[in-house]
Amino acid sequence: MVGKSQIKFIRSLQLKKYRKLNGLFVAEGVKLVNELLQAELTSEGVFTTHPELLPPRFSSFEVIGEADLKRMSGLKTPNKVLAVFRIPETTEPVLEEWTLALDGVKDPGNLGTIIRLCDWFGIPQIVCSEDTVDCFNPKVLQATMGSIARVKIAYTALEPLLTDSEHSTFGADMHGENIYELEFPSKGILVMGNEAHGISDEVGVLLDKKVSIPQFGQSSVESLNVATATAILLNELRREGR
Amino acid sequence: MVGKSQIKFIRSLQLKKYRKLNGLFVAEGVKLVNELLQAELTSEGVFTTHPELLPPRFSSFEVIGEADLKRMSGLKTPNKVLAVFRIPETTEPVLEEWTLALDGVKDPGNLGTIIRLCDWFGIPQIVCSEDTVDCFNPKVLQATMGSIARVKIAYTALEPLLTDSEHSTFGADMHGENIYELEFPSKGILVMGNEAHGISDEVGVLLDKKVSIPQFGQSSVESLNVATATAILLNELRREGR
Repeated sequence: MVGKSQIKFIRSLQLKKYRKLNGLFVAEGVKLVNELLQAELTSEGVFTTHPELLPPRFSSFEVIGEADLKRMSGLKTPNKVLAVFRIPETTEPVLEEWTLALDGVKDPGNLGTIIRLCDWFGIPQIVCSEDTVDCFNPKVLQATMGSIARVKIAYTALEPLLTDSEHSTFGADMHGENIYELEFPSKGILVMGNEAHGISDEVGVLLDKKVSIPQFGQSSVESLNVATATAILLNELRREGR
Repeated sequence: MVGKSQIKFIRSLQLKKYRKLNGLFVAEGVKLVNELLQAELTSEGVFTTHPELLPPRFSSFEVIGEADLKRMSGLKTPNKVLAVFRIPETTEPVLEEWTLALDGVKDPGNLGTIIRLCDWFGIPQIVCSEDTVDCFNPKVLQATMGSIARVKIAYTALEPLLTDSEHSTFGADMHGENIYELEFPSKGILVMGNEAHGISDEVGVLLDKKVSIPQFGQSSVESLNVATATAILLNELRREGR
């Protein structure tokens, strides 16, 4: 039996303010919750209408009714399982191999897709500028398809990171060097910018090289979506680093 | 002054059924409408609260109030301009150079992103299976960022297209050949499948080659999102075709 105040508390975690205040976030859906349970995240409450969908031998859950799940959920159509997890402590980013840095990415779907891409391409860590959308935003979590459990994410100012880096730093920019004409090193930092404004001036001046994905045909598209551009660039890093 | 029945008619075009019935679709937002007006599309009505945002010398519009725009619009926050366009007649797909074929892509955001990618990479034409989401769906249009004006899109069964093609046919598949180990020809058809089920069996058997994007690290991601996978594959075709 879940009480009114508990439901209200869980609902409040839809907002960044209350996630920060309590150090907790909410994940919904069988696939996402199961991935997070299997990762090293601490769950503070697992609620389900269908306990048989949880991992075998997992026992610390509460069976609830559809109506209560609907009250807790941020989804229009709640998806059988909802869990509250502790936000993992972020350590100072340690730069190994390739790191992806995001400078003001705002769209939750884009950040989620980028986290999933890093998981696919074996990029262990994303460093986000403070104004990047919160990675524990429910829409971000949904778009990661569980990859949030495997990619480390830190929020910090990018300037010191780039200044102190021993590795080369690259940034995606419309007027950068053609990616087909350059060779990426085996280690480095790749910076992707905001959806509308690209990389900020403050970060831009600290980059060793700006790189650009060639455009073909007579298109008047102004830019690629940041998630698709990230896909192309991570693929380029990996195809060359073999 | 717009009448109640006109508003109701425009609202009805949010649904595929009524778009098909009337051969019309609705576009919203300054950027999208202006791109479509500048392309070869026939507008059947342009409504705006801010006429100064329309192209210079463009005169066939109607100035309306915020309240009427809100009634016509499918958006939560209507965006100053709304226009009704005639759906262009589709001709039989003619295969030149590279063609992208979509086998049951369902998510409007994915289709919109893919159209924008084709515009960027100079792929003139997309052929969609009949069960692919309608490209005049408002969410698709929004995600194309205007690229819908420059990429031809046909809906037809993919089987005859693949059977009759003189060019090689490729399809993205988790168990395909590593894209880094093969060379793409300068012409061909690339097939991308449904978000959950990939390429259908009927289409799969007609492909010359299945191709796959290598996975790195210990990720347990099952697949890449179809739009990001399309981004990577189109980039591969273009980097090799230079």
